[in-house]
Amino acid sequence: MPDKKKTTIVLFSGDYDKAMAAYIIANGAAAYDHEVTIFHTFWGLNALRKEEKISAQKSFMEKMFGKMMPRGADRMGLSKMNFAGFGPKMIKGIIKKHNAISLPQLIEMAREQDVKLVACTMTMDLLGLKKEELLDGIEYAGVAAYLADAEKGHVNLFI
Amino acid sequence: MPDKKKTTIVLFSGDYDKAMAAYIIANGAAAYDHEVTIFHTFWGLNALRKEEKISAQKSFMEKMFGKMMPRGADRMGLSKMNFAGFGPKMIKGIIKKHNAISLPQLIEMAREQDVKLVACTMTMDLLGLKKEELLDGIEYAGVAAYLADAEKGHVNLFI
Amino acid sequence: MPDKKKTTIVLFSGDYDKAMAAYIIANGAAAYDHEVTIFHTFWGLNALRKEEKISAQKSFMEKMFGKMMPRGADRMGLSKMNFAGFGPKMIKGIIKKHNAISLPQLIEMAREQDVKLVACTMTMDLLGLKKEELLDGIEYAGVAAYLADAEKGHVNLFI
Repeated sequence: MPDKKKTTIVLFSGDYDKAMAAYIIANGAAAYDHEVTIFHTFWGLNALRKEEKISAQKSFMEKMFGKMMPRGADRMGLSKMNFAGFGPKMIKGIIKKHNAISLPQLIEMAREQDVKLVACTMTMDLLGLKKEELLDGIEYAGVAAYLADAEKGHVNLFI
Repeated sequence: MPDKKKTTIVLFSGDYDKAMAAYIIANGAAAYDHEVTIFHTFWGLNALRKEEKISAQKSFMEKMFGKMMPRGADRMGLSKMNFAGFGPKMIKGIIKKHNAISLPQLIEMAREQDVKLVACTMTMDLLGLKKEELLDGIEYAGVAAYLADAEKGHVNLFI
Repeated sequence: MPDKKKTTIVLFSGDYDKAMAAYIIANGAAAYDHEVTIFHTFWGLNALRKEEKISAQKSFMEKMFGKMMPRGADRMGLSKMNFAGFGPKMIKGIIKKHNAISLPQLIEMAREQDVKLVACTMTMDLLGLKKEELLDGIEYAGVAAYLADAEKGHVNLFI
């Protein structure tokens, strides 16, 4: 039996549209029977944040970063035409009108398809994000684990 | 006879400089005898827009997006130092002075080298872009077709 | 004896955080015994600039570009939350506090691990950057050399 194909995506970006692209490709690859990993690092970690405010022991700097960064996929901005937050509303309106799938739904779908969602522990530390602030049931790993996946990957992308 | 090497590029970005990088790599790979696909999605679709205004049946929102997005490669902005549109003029001036190749020329060259230019139908729909607004002779496909190419790709990039 | 695994990264971005991600992956891959190449193109070339001002024969346009672009990794801005240059100071403060590794240190570490640092000659030309302005001991090449590496690569990323 041949090995399954593998897709790995580093999601570095905290933009709604780029995260959409990442999750659309991930869901497509999973439907295509690939083993899929999304490794969330830097601003991409925001896609994994819970929407509610979580109180966690933080330094001043960590609190500041925590406040400035969006809590969860639904609050992320666009890479283009963000218009001080109006752009995402437009995109979401269009998504709804077209019966297309929103980012939070794409993430939910990825979880149902067993896409491995990983949070980069090193950048969590850097940005002061705690495990209790991120979605339950995800994995935590560093760059070594990413590379172990990626070196066997057929499609490896940095988004 | 060994199979041809394959290069696939997802062009997500609508920036002139990033699209240049994508098309330079694509043309290089084609010259290197790779089979090359550029899959244009989200803002990357703008590189495929015709320069002239095309009238098409559109909703209000689609018209608005259509107006705000650049019509064609030559009107795209820079990812850095855009200076309200002055940056691209500088880059284009330099390209001319160095006898380097502009983005519209790079796209033309890619077509001559049989680089497969694909427009992502799902994001066309989302942004309200119609086939008659895009260059003639390109292909239309979704994420499944992209993955079918990419999983056999030797060089797969997201730009 | 099996061939070594290969990782290639195109560093297009001139953002401090994206360059950090590139160099963290590169260092990880080198530690993992991959052959690693970082191909610096467009704004990514700034990561290779010497900190001191170098006088070189330049046209007016080249001088202008040279002045506007950051001299070296330590002066690069963030892709998000740059806050007119305050963001990088915050990140650097956090890096220091966490005993994490700054970008200039990551570059130094990559050199010690024999990561091949390449400057794209075509974009050097375009941006008016001269060899004497870039770090000593790096390599110079074009897209053909990049593709020769990448087509044998196991992990190929565009950052």
